[in-house]
Amino acid sequence: MKVRSYHVNSGDGIDGLSLRVDGSRPPGPGEVAVAVHAVSLSFRELLVLRGRYVLPVKPDVIPVSDGAGEVVAVGPGVQRVRPGDRVTATLFPQWQDGPLRPEFLPQLGGSLDGLLTEVAILPEQALVPVPEHLSYAEAATLPCAAVTAWNALTGDGSGIGAGVLCGQTVVTTGSGGVSLFAVQLAKLLGATVIATTGRPDKEQRLRDLGADEVVNYRTVPDWHTAVRDLTGGRGADRVVHTAGALDQSLRSLAVSGHVAFVGSVDGNWPPLDPRLVFGAVATLRAVAVGSHAQFTQLADFVTAHRLRPVIDRTFPFEDARAAFRHYESTNPFGKVVIEVR
Amino acid sequence: MKVRSYHVNSGDGIDGLSLRVDGSRPPGPGEVAVAVHAVSLSFRELLVLRGRYVLPVKPDVIPVSDGAGEVVAVGPGVQRVRPGDRVTATLFPQWQDGPLRPEFLPQLGGSLDGLLTEVAILPEQALVPVPEHLSYAEAATLPCAAVTAWNALTGDGSGIGAGVLCGQTVVTTGSGGVSLFAVQLAKLLGATVIATTGRPDKEQRLRDLGADEVVNYRTVPDWHTAVRDLTGGRGADRVVHTAGALDQSLRSLAVSGHVAFVGSVDGNWPPLDPRLVFGAVATLRAVAVGSHAQFTQLADFVTAHRLRPVIDRTFPFEDARAAFRHYESTNPFGKVVIEVR
Amino acid sequence: MKVRSYHVNSGDGIDGLSLRVDGSRPPGPGEVAVAVHAVSLSFRELLVLRGRYVLPVKPDVIPVSDGAGEVVAVGPGVQRVRPGDRVTATLFPQWQDGPLRPEFLPQLGGSLDGLLTEVAILPEQALVPVPEHLSYAEAATLPCAAVTAWNALTGDGSGIGAGVLCGQTVVTTGSGGVSLFAVQLAKLLGATVIATTGRPDKEQRLRDLGADEVVNYRTVPDWHTAVRDLTGGRGADRVVHTAGALDQSLRSLAVSGHVAFVGSVDGNWPPLDPRLVFGAVATLRAVAVGSHAQFTQLADFVTAHRLRPVIDRTFPFEDARAAFRHYESTNPFGKVVIEVR
Amino acid sequence: MKVRSYHVNSGDGIDGLSLRVDGSRPPGPGEVAVAVHAVSLSFRELLVLRGRYVLPVKPDVIPVSDGAGEVVAVGPGVQRVRPGDRVTATLFPQWQDGPLRPEFLPQLGGSLDGLLTEVAILPEQALVPVPEHLSYAEAATLPCAAVTAWNALTGDGSGIGAGVLCGQTVVTTGSGGVSLFAVQLAKLLGATVIATTGRPDKEQRLRDLGADEVVNYRTVPDWHTAVRDLTGGRGADRVVHTAGALDQSLRSLAVSGHVAFVGSVDGNWPPLDPRLVFGAVATLRAVAVGSHAQFTQLADFVTAHRLRPVIDRTFPFEDARAAFRHYESTNPFGKVVIEVR
Repeated sequence: MKVRSYHVNSGDGIDGLSLRVDGSRPPGPGEVAVAVHAVSLSFRELLVLRGRYVLPVKPDVIPVSDGAGEVVAVGPGVQRVRPGDRVTATLFPQWQDGPLRPEFLPQLGGSLDGLLTEVAILPEQALVPVPEHLSYAEAATLPCAAVTAWNALTGDGSGIGAGVLCGQTVVTTGSGGVSLFAVQLAKLLGATVIATTGRPDKEQRLRDLGADEVVNYRTVPDWHTAVRDLTGGRGADRVVHTAGALDQSLRSLAVSGHVAFVGSVDGNWPPLDPRLVFGAVATLRAVAVGSHAQFTQLADFVTAHRLRPVIDRTFPFEDARAAFRHYESTNPFGKVVIEVR
Repeated sequence: MKVRSYHVNSGDGIDGLSLRVDGSRPPGPGEVAVAVHAVSLSFRELLVLRGRYVLPVKPDVIPVSDGAGEVVAVGPGVQRVRPGDRVTATLFPQWQDGPLRPEFLPQLGGSLDGLLTEVAILPEQALVPVPEHLSYAEAATLPCAAVTAWNALTGDGSGIGAGVLCGQTVVTTGSGGVSLFAVQLAKLLGATVIATTGRPDKEQRLRDLGADEVVNYRTVPDWHTAVRDLTGGRGADRVVHTAGALDQSLRSLAVSGHVAFVGSVDGNWPPLDPRLVFGAVATLRAVAVGSHAQFTQLADFVTAHRLRPVIDRTFPFEDARAAFRHYESTNPFGKVVIEVR
Repeated sequence: MKVRSYHVNSGDGIDGLSLRVDGSRPPGPGEVAVAVHAVSLSFRELLVLRGRYVLPVKPDVIPVSDGAGEVVAVGPGVQRVRPGDRVTATLFPQWQDGPLRPEFLPQLGGSLDGLLTEVAILPEQALVPVPEHLSYAEAATLPCAAVTAWNALTGDGSGIGAGVLCGQTVVTTGSGGVSLFAVQLAKLLGATVIATTGRPDKEQRLRDLGADEVVNYRTVPDWHTAVRDLTGGRGADRVVHTAGALDQSLRSLAVSGHVAFVGSVDGNWPPLDPRLVFGAVATLRAVAVGSHAQFTQLADFVTAHRLRPVIDRTFPFEDARAAFRHYESTNPFGKVVIEVR
Repeated sequence: MKVRSYHVNSGDGIDGLSLRVDGSRPPGPGEVAVAVHAVSLSFRELLVLRGRYVLPVKPDVIPVSDGAGEVVAVGPGVQRVRPGDRVTATLFPQWQDGPLRPEFLPQLGGSLDGLLTEVAILPEQALVPVPEHLSYAEAATLPCAAVTAWNALTGDGSGIGAGVLCGQTVVTTGSGGVSLFAVQLAKLLGATVIATTGRPDKEQRLRDLGADEVVNYRTVPDWHTAVRDLTGGRGADRVVHTAGALDQSLRSLAVSGHVAFVGSVDGNWPPLDPRLVFGAVATLRAVAVGSHAQFTQLADFVTAHRLRPVIDRTFPFEDARAAFRHYESTNPFGKVVIEVR
């Protein structure tokens, strides 16, 4: 059987993406062949293409970590899935549970081949069932963005007991993929959500997703003071920080507040004043997506609440480069998806 | 000022309830005077009247533990509430957090005066704010029934991480006060809910509250087999057991399942086969209402999800005896409330 | 290469054990060949031989779940271990973490071949490194007895924060393998330990292992009253229950106490009065050994505290039947070990 | 009765300490009179005297938060203690459990009177029983330093299950009061401890307390590389950071490592590179002493392990100023204690 896949070398940019037809191989022990239906793009893909990704990337890698498809064949010893199952996959296949460890770092679309291909050969342990109410395109949006948002909101060990965000105030920064899921999930978890954005046209859309309040950080550069005002001077319990200066997120915190530090989409890492951490008796926690157990928990939550991801635009497989260019040059509200079949 | 209160001695029955007018006293240090607006009846009240309550009852007690009202005066040193605040109260005022301990056993409407009075003097630490969307009558239903259901569903320490009941199957038994809250809360926590009842006329009402499936234990005496069938042979993850034989609840469990043992409303305590506990690798946990921290967490959850309690019928203060008789002789669907003012 | 192994069919008894020489096979994908140095006997082995084991047993099984040895070869894809590593193995190889689930039930020395062989082929994921200060014979005692005791003491989710048994009172019942580890571990975890035994000659030995108090249940049949006396009337916080009537363990509990129900070594399962569970606001939790994660945690604890298991007697490989007879007919204080090489 | 107390105004320095004799007042509702036997000095005392303390200080305050003594009288409603009880007290009397909140900030020796007095009137809820094996002088060292170290090591919610530090590597920085307790506690909790110090003469003393390795940060300024070498390149699991640049503590971390940020004894707060937090997928958590529940848990641990605090030197009550000067000008190894009676 012939299989079409995109390949790229780290640093070769969007123009370096080449579509190639190769012979397929059967899945080996513990492996599963998945007919990919859709993938979605995350910021990490751009870093790979730009040669600025922090982890090793194999030469001629099949890029893109996030996708969903149908199981078409299983290798010897596979027990969790059967042909016909609808599945998606975790970024770090070896990270099953507990904290991230160095040996769990091999990742799809980086040191391992990813999903921008008609048939992906994936380790069984990477697979997570697709929530039944979601299309493949919707499911393809979950692995990086939604799992990161889930980890940011619930993964710090303070979430003991159900309903833990009830009564808390959560701040989200901007309207990237993680932030949109953070708005949706935090609202369903019972929090009061304050979203920030720099775009007036996105304010209403953030409210429609569940934000109780929206602060425009261009018209209110000291947006942490707005957060204080909206919380009666107390400050927010949690911030999901995806970009900008950490100092402002820390200044918006209540005593014993928590900043989930998801990275810096804008590549901007201004130094941090440690007195802000100490003064708020704060916890600053870096979040690197999440484990298979966290993905499974998220998927159950998505199913239970019939959550629907936001998709900005969909491209056909043949137009993968256009999809990347759209993702890079616009400021999409929702995920950019490539439909593989 | 004159205050009207009902009084009773343990064992004197409903006819022993007498309405009396006494002079009021101001709240002492750490005490709060609450103008009670509504109370609700729980099974424990009947046990007190019948002289069969397991904990000590003071002579001439003001009965009824569950109620809600408005703060009218505070004693020296009170910091948490102010006049005008709408409050309800925890059954065990000294149980603030953590597990129940012997020194926390003094309780409202038992060894301490309860709320069937126009003005109750309560310890500050017993008070919990009324969720803003609830009437006093609705708030009066929470202290025993809803807190017990919350503890039964979330209080076993396994609830690490938010959204923990998502994907789980929860069985509720019957349609008493705890069971109705358990149906509502379990559904909002993301569980699949199987409710049992002996009354065909209640089946649809349980579905309306959120039950995904209803099993009639009169037409299906071996209802645990129905639970197995509805779960693909796996069994339920949790049972909130309020009456009947524990053996059946245990037989309906999945491996590693959990039975929250709320008591026996029917006064029937058949012996239990320990092999059923061991065979299911089960946990059987007795639940005795909950702490102030659990009540606060529940109240936040009720607020976040705009949950509305079910009220069966409301009686005026003067007809308190009729309210007790109605509660005792019918099989109400929802709480029986007495409006005090 | 030739390998000697014992084989048996469920129900054939000790006399049914036969020593056979077979050709060895190389480890397959994800498998590891372990040169077994020692095994230890647990009550489950007797149940297998008697045909009374609750889980399926394969025909002609290599018996005995608990053992330790040296890795001699690894199959394709194995990453966690290398030849030369000293390892022991978990009873349920597929139970890696979280609660026990039905799909995790395949077990060594039951539905899977066990370790009473010169070379065992084991799944990689079953292996746990041997604590460096332990001999192979000592390490062979850990998989069932010590992991069960660890789970019984720490595995109920209440153990939030380190040092959680400090200040608690733990009761152990009898002097079987689980109970001896429970005494040692509970003491190191900071508990006050009350051990029960029926043998005067074992009282001092239990004290030497760490028991603060010893109650003889033959001279004090109502031993729960002795526990109450020793705790100032409060009762014990935890009981590790391995045999006898659960009613007595429940009667010895403090309010909010916990019974870890490890089984019934004496095959005696008298019915249980549920009022005792409710009256103590108790939790009764069945314990079925533990996960790979729990074994790893235990092994780290054993290493950190230089804990040494108690061995009753050691037999050579050729005298395996004699080892079983000794284990069955005496009441050993410590584990019975067979040295394979 | 006449009582001698030291008083001071924030900013008046050590010379501002004045000894005064006042009439005593009886304890009010919920209050307890404690005959102080000993107090110990912490860095916060110097900040108060220098007028640089971050929280409000009342005029003419009785300074020093940490002490221990004997209950001599109790006010109305007090239930937890009786005359004759040996007690110590928590820094934040209102912080009973859970995370720190703004309303819990009133503190002894700051906005509330402290313990440098012959008889302190303390709120009942601040009191913690003295471990029986400790002298008053030893118990007086616990409230700030030991509770902070305990919180730093166990209070981040990751400590689920007993024995959680077993197998982990913990780094302590310097030899201040918190650091010495951190070495002792981490060792007893089963960790491998790497202590840093700038003084060769303290290296052996740190080893004697339990440090497995000691790194001299003067001879090895890039001490984080030494930590990496000592951990096979992996890095440390936790750092208890009390002084110096956070960047170095972060560079010494393993993936998913944790820095407990106790403050900066040297008053030096260099800015932090957030890439170090993200790169290690680290958690940076500020620690502000701990709650009453944490102090109680620590005290139980201290009792169970017969831990003995290190005392550098003891001064009589009359020489309180000399004690402060000694604490300020030397680099004591252990706590500086003032014996009040």
